[in-house]
Amino acid sequence: MKNLVNHLHAFVNETSITTEEWMKTIQFLTTVGQTCTPIRQEFILLSDVLGVSALVDAINNPPVKGATESSVLGPFFTEDAPDIEQGGSIASEGKGQYMYVEGTVRSTDGTPIPDAVIETWEADESGSYDTQYKDRDHPDCRGRLRTDKDGRFGYRAVTPVAYPIPGDGPVGELLITIGRHNLRPNHLHFMVEKSGFRKLVTSLYPDGDPFLSTDAVFGVKKNLVVKLEEVNDDAEARKRGFPKGGSFKLLKYDVVLVPLDEAKAALEEFSKQRAKNAAA
Amino acid sequence: MKNLVNHLHAFVNETSITTEEWMKTIQFLTTVGQTCTPIRQEFILLSDVLGVSALVDAINNPPVKGATESSVLGPFFTEDAPDIEQGGSIASEGKGQYMYVEGTVRSTDGTPIPDAVIETWEADESGSYDTQYKDRDHPDCRGRLRTDKDGRFGYRAVTPVAYPIPGDGPVGELLITIGRHNLRPNHLHFMVEKSGFRKLVTSLYPDGDPFLSTDAVFGVKKNLVVKLEEVNDDAEARKRGFPKGGSFKLLKYDVVLVPLDEAKAALEEFSKQRAKNAAA
Repeated sequence: MKNLVNHLHAFVNETSITTEEWMKTIQFLTTVGQTCTPIRQEFILLSDVLGVSALVDAINNPPVKGATESSVLGPFFTEDAPDIEQGGSIASEGKGQYMYVEGTVRSTDGTPIPDAVIETWEADESGSYDTQYKDRDHPDCRGRLRTDKDGRFGYRAVTPVAYPIPGDGPVGELLITIGRHNLRPNHLHFMVEKSGFRKLVTSLYPDGDPFLSTDAVFGVKKNLVVKLEEVNDDAEARKRGFPKGGSFKLLKYDVVLVPLDEAKAALEEFSKQRAKNAAA
Repeated sequence: MKNLVNHLHAFVNETSITTEEWMKTIQFLTTVGQTCTPIRQEFILLSDVLGVSALVDAINNPPVKGATESSVLGPFFTEDAPDIEQGGSIASEGKGQYMYVEGTVRSTDGTPIPDAVIETWEADESGSYDTQYKDRDHPDCRGRLRTDKDGRFGYRAVTPVAYPIPGDGPVGELLITIGRHNLRPNHLHFMVEKSGFRKLVTSLYPDGDPFLSTDAVFGVKKNLVVKLEEVNDDAEARKRGFPKGGSFKLLKYDVVLVPLDEAKAALEEFSKQRAKNAAA
């Protein structure tokens, strides 16, 4: 609290905000709060566009050699994703371009991790999450599955596209006011949990997207940029359960989780390093 | 924005807040926003208890020799105060202990200011503003009047009492969590406007209150602490329109407004001084 008050007061002092600007800020924050609903979190969005979420993530989840890096949660995670089977689909048929996601969840030493829970969600082909549709009556483009006995997972999804973060609320207005675009590069969200390992919240970013270097929420990390394979093989598509067959994109990625003791050591080392940097 | 982002990031960096603390903060801010209604402003209350409102006030309204100093607006100002006549009452009969407020609105050179608009509001004898009653069907303990041709004003009110700021919302919870009391010393709000003069938002604080030195919203300034006279004279009470007569408190105070050119000069001088202090 003391640190917060010091920074708040320094901000007011250094910028000499006027009474009108203060009142405008009060109204802005009020609108941000009142834009939040059980399926929309405008304060997370605000935290995201100010780079606060990415910073909190960076501080709390220091990278561990060989492990999948974390990325921002974003405001679109919901608790109501349906459970799907191995090979099942997170997207209803007819949504976007076919993509198949497959890989193995492993520990940093390479050991496969069975029974890890994967939550995965994404925007549809028009760049909207299910929660952004007013008539949402069921979850879509999101699902929960478990790795098999060999740590493997595979599921059908939609090839992600770049999209604007919600522009119809106060955070959208803010970005316009300060002259920033509101686009996120194409990505697929993951949250992977298994007891004994650090919880992983991340996204994979297919390469070639023009907004990879100017993500509106600062979520992209180099190691999370992936290549999609184009598979033009009707039989392969049908084998993976795509009802219409034809071509599809293949995203192959092994998720590497960090055992809790390694995570703890990394966090301590990172904190030490940060304290040293701060003192210097 | 750049300054804000720098301070936000420095705060996160220096406190190393955890992902859980970040999420708790998101939820807190969301609740603050959702606690706001047309007659309750929880974000102003938050700004008040963190000393931000007092600081914004101090920066924007530097004291001018001889003029009435400003104080925080607080979250209880409403637009619907009734117009009252000279000598009229802002409080409905039966509310609290009688108080009569009288004085002259003047310019810094002593000239009386006729036709200045005074908005004045206060809590009732139980320490609640009218807006804090669920069944509020009309404004009470607030009114709007104009000074007469000699700059004078006089009106009936309620002797203020110390009271807790709203404790049933997230800001109340915050204060409990960090071990701070939530009391404001007794006071009477004023907002005085006249074209050609700096708008004055202030409060007067009758002396003797135990919370003058630890006001939960940092609004008290030495020059705003006033003495109430005790008048035990039935005839005097009736002369001032108190229906039940008896004794009353008398608050005599001359409000001194700052002409706009003096206000501008004071603000420039103060800004220069602050810049110099910041550089040193």
